[in-house]
Amino acid sequence: MRRTAFFVSDRTGITAEMLGHSLLTQFEDVTFHRVTLPYVDTPEKAVEVALEIRKHSVIDGCRPLVFSTVVDPIIRKLTHVPEALVIDFFEMFIGPLEAELGQDSSHTVGKSHAIVNFEEYKNRIDAVNFTLNHDDGVMPRDLSEADLILVGVSRSGKTPTCLYLALQFGIKAANYPLTPEDFGNHTMPKLLLPYRNKLFGLTIEADRLTEIREERKPDSKYSSVENCRFEIAEAEALMRHVGVPYLNTTRMSIEELATTIMHRTGLVRRTY
Amino acid sequence: MRRTAFFVSDRTGITAEMLGHSLLTQFEDVTFHRVTLPYVDTPEKAVEVALEIRKHSVIDGCRPLVFSTVVDPIIRKLTHVPEALVIDFFEMFIGPLEAELGQDSSHTVGKSHAIVNFEEYKNRIDAVNFTLNHDDGVMPRDLSEADLILVGVSRSGKTPTCLYLALQFGIKAANYPLTPEDFGNHTMPKLLLPYRNKLFGLTIEADRLTEIREERKPDSKYSSVENCRFEIAEAEALMRHVGVPYLNTTRMSIEELATTIMHRTGLVRRTY
Repeated sequence: MRRTAFFVSDRTGITAEMLGHSLLTQFEDVTFHRVTLPYVDTPEKAVEVALEIRKHSVIDGCRPLVFSTVVDPIIRKLTHVPEALVIDFFEMFIGPLEAELGQDSSHTVGKSHAIVNFEEYKNRIDAVNFTLNHDDGVMPRDLSEADLILVGVSRSGKTPTCLYLALQFGIKAANYPLTPEDFGNHTMPKLLLPYRNKLFGLTIEADRLTEIREERKPDSKYSSVENCRFEIAEAEALMRHVGVPYLNTTRMSIEELATTIMHRTGLVRRTY
Repeated sequence: MRRTAFFVSDRTGITAEMLGHSLLTQFEDVTFHRVTLPYVDTPEKAVEVALEIRKHSVIDGCRPLVFSTVVDPIIRKLTHVPEALVIDFFEMFIGPLEAELGQDSSHTVGKSHAIVNFEEYKNRIDAVNFTLNHDDGVMPRDLSEADLILVGVSRSGKTPTCLYLALQFGIKAANYPLTPEDFGNHTMPKLLLPYRNKLFGLTIEADRLTEIREERKPDSKYSSVENCRFEIAEAEALMRHVGVPYLNTTRMSIEELATTIMHRTGLVRRTY
């Protein structure tokens, strides 16, 4: 049986999707048909949404789930249809918070992912630009501005992790590949030495690395499992020797890598 | 008065932060000191967290707020201290969902941001690589693989928006700058013509564009307000002429841009 899960919001829908998703992953045996309905910001759109939800209760033969982060009370009321199970975040939590803080909430729509603070927003864009300009060993300026420098063999996951850190947390994250030229020196590349305390390593299992590199350069020495095994062993030995902490990316998502690095290094996010 | 807000999770803490942040933005007059405590995955760590929360209730002279997405019932219990207001996400919603779905939840930690599905994860990394390889008019391969092609004047916000779409939604988003060479032709650059239905435009106000370009090339023709005004007017005229929908990025966050584009184009996210 298929259940439709709606994510309803008067703004982007990102919070509704994330909250709903984290709850739905707890029910592995059910197949969910996910529908995001963002920018439901007028009574007219709310009435349409209510119709859409009702329609699915008939088509599916069971009650849809509705995960709602709608802030506006009128729109919230219009989208609460009895034919669905409505999980309403604001309704549930805003009351206890108002009581605790001794204040009414502003009931203002769309604060969460809007540009609340231009300075904060600029930091974030600057971090993205810094990360793009200091990717894969390209280091146009010195690295004193970097918050973090990821090192690891080619295709170990450095670039997506850096981009996530920059986009989501406003962290200026450079990355530098450890290549066969760096092995045997028993020290990090010269460029990185002044910034040893900003270094963090990524490593990966050889089989997965081969799989990833095969897509880029099939049947090459670069992607062979022997070479991958050699590069990984050398890179790990080097990181251990220099005292650079490292993570194995093989079974971790980008989110897990990024948050674990933040946690281990003590870096604090610059943007929400 | 300063209130401490804790975001507590047995995994990344991303969901707890987002939930808490979306609620806290509703209380503008309170200053919050935000502390994320991720990876609280053992009873020992939970006891430490409880101590930390208690400590802040004394230091601050008021009850901390605790936004928790802890799934494990034992750890949840240990972190629920009476000295704080605990907003417990799973406790609140998992019961109604279990009743509705007629199933027990798996009570499994960390499904939400872990690699649930390797195929989905690969799609996401592929999208990031595609976007990086098709940035700022660099088009090594033809664009038939692209889900979306953003166009707009230099520094209108194309790159961060594309990266967000790739990282968060698994969308292959290329971007192409509209430059003075393209104006006066009354048509899009030749390379883009076969993909007209994939085009989406970004525009921006001249004052903001000048501000952004000044940081890159101060006192240049490129960044002058006259030139910015000219480029924007030409780019908008071109997009209108060709029938490319466009958004003004000046007061929008990256999240708002990305979700609005998804919504308007009907693209569906490839990854959660």
